Amino acid sequence: MRTLMESARAAKAASVLTAQLDTESKNRALRAIAAALVERTEEILDSNGRDMESARARGMESSLLDRLMLNAQRIEGMAEGLRQVAELPDPVGEVMEQWTRPNGLLIKKVRVPMGVIGMIYEARPNVTVDAAALTFKAGSAVLLRSSASAFESSAALVRVMRETLEAQGITPDAVCLVEDKSHGAVDEMLKLRECIDLIVPRGGAGLIRNAVMNSTVPVLETGTGNCHVYVDASADYEMAERIVINAKTQRTGVCNAAETLLVHSAWAEEHLRALLKALTDREVELHGDLPAAGYTEGMIPATEADWADEYLRLAMAVKVVSGVEEAVEHINRYGTKHTECILTADEKSAEYFLRNVDAAVVDWNASTRFTDGFEFGFGAELGISTQKLHARGPMGLREITSYKYLVIGSGQARP
Amino acid sequence: MRTLMESARAAKAASVLTAQLDTESKNRALRAIAAALVERTEEILDSNGRDMESARARGMESSLLDRLMLNAQRIEGMAEGLRQVAELPDPVGEVMEQWTRPNGLLIKKVRVPMGVIGMIYEARPNVTVDAAALTFKAGSAVLLRSSASAFESSAALVRVMRETLEAQGITPDAVCLVEDKSHGAVDEMLKLRECIDLIVPRGGAGLIRNAVMNSTVPVLETGTGNCHVYVDASADYEMAERIVINAKTQRTGVCNAAETLLVHSAWAEEHLRALLKALTDREVELHGDLPAAGYTEGMIPATEADWADEYLRLAMAVKVVSGVEEAVEHINRYGTKHTECILTADEKSAEYFLRNVDAAVVDWNASTRFTDGFEFGFGAELGISTQKLHARGPMGLREITSYKYLVIGSGQARP
Repeated sequence: MRTLMESARAAKAASVLTAQLDTESKNRALRAIAAALVERTEEILDSNGRDMESARARGMESSLLDRLMLNAQRIEGMAEGLRQVAELPDPVGEVMEQWTRPNGLLIKKVRVPMGVIGMIYEARPNVTVDAAALTFKAGSAVLLRSSASAFESSAALVRVMRETLEAQGITPDAVCLVEDKSHGAVDEMLKLRECIDLIVPRGGAGLIRNAVMNSTVPVLETGTGNCHVYVDASADYEMAERIVINAKTQRTGVCNAAETLLVHSAWAEEHLRALLKALTDREVELHGDLPAAGYTEGMIPATEADWADEYLRLAMAVKVVSGVEEAVEHINRYGTKHTECILTADEKSAEYFLRNVDAAVVDWNASTRFTDGFEFGFGAELGISTQKLHARGPMGLREITSYKYLVIGSGQARP
Repeated sequence: MRTLMESARAAKAASVLTAQLDTESKNRALRAIAAALVERTEEILDSNGRDMESARARGMESSLLDRLMLNAQRIEGMAEGLRQVAELPDPVGEVMEQWTRPNGLLIKKVRVPMGVIGMIYEARPNVTVDAAALTFKAGSAVLLRSSASAFESSAALVRVMRETLEAQGITPDAVCLVEDKSHGAVDEMLKLRECIDLIVPRGGAGLIRNAVMNSTVPVLETGTGNCHVYVDASADYEMAERIVINAKTQRTGVCNAAETLLVHSAWAEEHLRALLKALTDREVELHGDLPAAGYTEGMIPATEADWADEYLRLAMAVKVVSGVEEAVEHINRYGTKHTECILTADEKSAEYFLRNVDAAVVDWNASTRFTDGFEFGFGAELGISTQKLHARGPMGLREITSYKYLVIGSGQARP
């Protein structure tokens, strides 16, 4: 077994080599990995079976078991993801800008790999492959810290990826798994500034908070989404119902699902009863303030905690507000800077909302569920950033690179 | 006296307002502050005099006293800086990219202010004004933590800025000074995630390290520069002498000064004696390896520490290397990812160096001293980033902003 430090040093050394790979070599390797995963499905499912067995023995709840479970179709899904990443343009080497100074210096701003990216994630084996594919295509090496409960699955996936890389003449250390399953390994990883250039935590609020609070390596904070839909006075009913239902119910366990509905009091009078019925018909549990409670039966009174909660299930907080100003104030107070939506036919309201809401993505007459690397056209995503530094919103290949300046002279010295 | 928390909350509230200011209001305020600083020179010099007096009483060394000292000319210099920032294009609201998805969604990536920027810096009163000017123009509020030894000077400058803002009808809390002079206030500031969006430390290695190691607020690491000049086999002697002398001696106490000279062994045989003489003629103290020592008299033997040291004075480490590969290896081992330079007539060597050196700025036949916001054409700089996340190299107005995505639809829900 390698210690964390050994794996991290190996990744660091590999990152010098992955930075040099040409696009075609990277794409060929990604496609070869896709083929190997499918070919070695049985071996991967064996390992996943061991994870599933111990998870069941420990009484893991069924939604988490479902995340952990692999089958042939899900492995094919991972392979398809790899093939898609192979199709994406290579961000490395792109000249982002260039200009010449009056003294003749040519300055080029060039996109370069980040170096070593440390991923810390929970029991979703697909993250192992998705993260490795994106970081590899972006010219970086990856150090993967899978949760202990998915360790056997992740180890099998990493084994297939490493063996395939090696067969392609590429250093297998481009993809390194943290083999130390202890919790201490995460704490240690968060301090490895000499080997890791960036930490990306993906998972629940506790996992992310631990990384943000304890890392001395720069962190890209992802994910928590207490997203709001604000229905303005002029919103079309049919559109509002379609988008609110979509944002709340199309998939509930994801960060871009809506959690709170804010409704203009005038619109509420006319339409809120119908909208709340559409929600309860779909078994959404409603937590509302007093004015909202007047438009349905059996609403649970909302407490302060409801305004801040990311339910991640068929539940929604409902509040009647006096207008767009109060909606923005509420959102900037309780939101998590992820995705916020206004539904309105009034351009002034929309402009005010788009300008004043502080979030990665602000939607006007579109569902919050579009905050996603694929939906944005990035082809894939490593996560959704909720911080304001470096990258905001869906992070595709470009968002996990850095840049450097090349200054080309002919002997200039500074006067 | 305001507590740190009160100042931070005031800055947070102000940042909502500064984000809304139009370009002309910001520029008018910057010019008014420039005029007020000059007009109130005497008042500022009085306060600076008190700082100087206590610094002298505590036995502060003369180079630090010189940094701390203000006079009419230096205040005019700050005012000129403000006028220049007023001339720069406003980064806020810039549409960085926009595209339409097949489903009709229009996605706009728009530059937005960072929010609240916390500056932690040492006894340079000019940073108080430079940082306030840049953050204000970039639409953010600033929370300034000046060192205790420059407190009276900073407080006077902040007073003038705040009073002028207020007279312009702009919230004075756009510029907040941390009034709590205790060391604990810095530690507390580094944890204020709810009020501060970004910490920028500027100063010595200890100050920066403290911020990087203890902050839970995202940090932009600035400054430490152990910069190298590598002289390749084909370098022109005259150019090499000009650039090495410029990089080492034009100004020594700055992060973009060269600290180590790496020389190709073939070039060394022919030219190193002359180059080292040019350096010692300018009183540069040389610390070299054994082969380098053969080309001059009285060279101090270099130890491991010399390769890592940022001398910030008339001293230089010298090493003879076998070629560009060894030079790059040495730089990537001992450098601080700031600025690295190759002098060569050989395009292959240059390409290898530009590609493989991991630094914010890589120069080919140009002095390291050009790594500077003004020299890059950014008009001003908040510092020079040595990290790979968010911004690398000189940070101008754009580099201290964030962005958000606006998604504009016509009722789209996710299938």
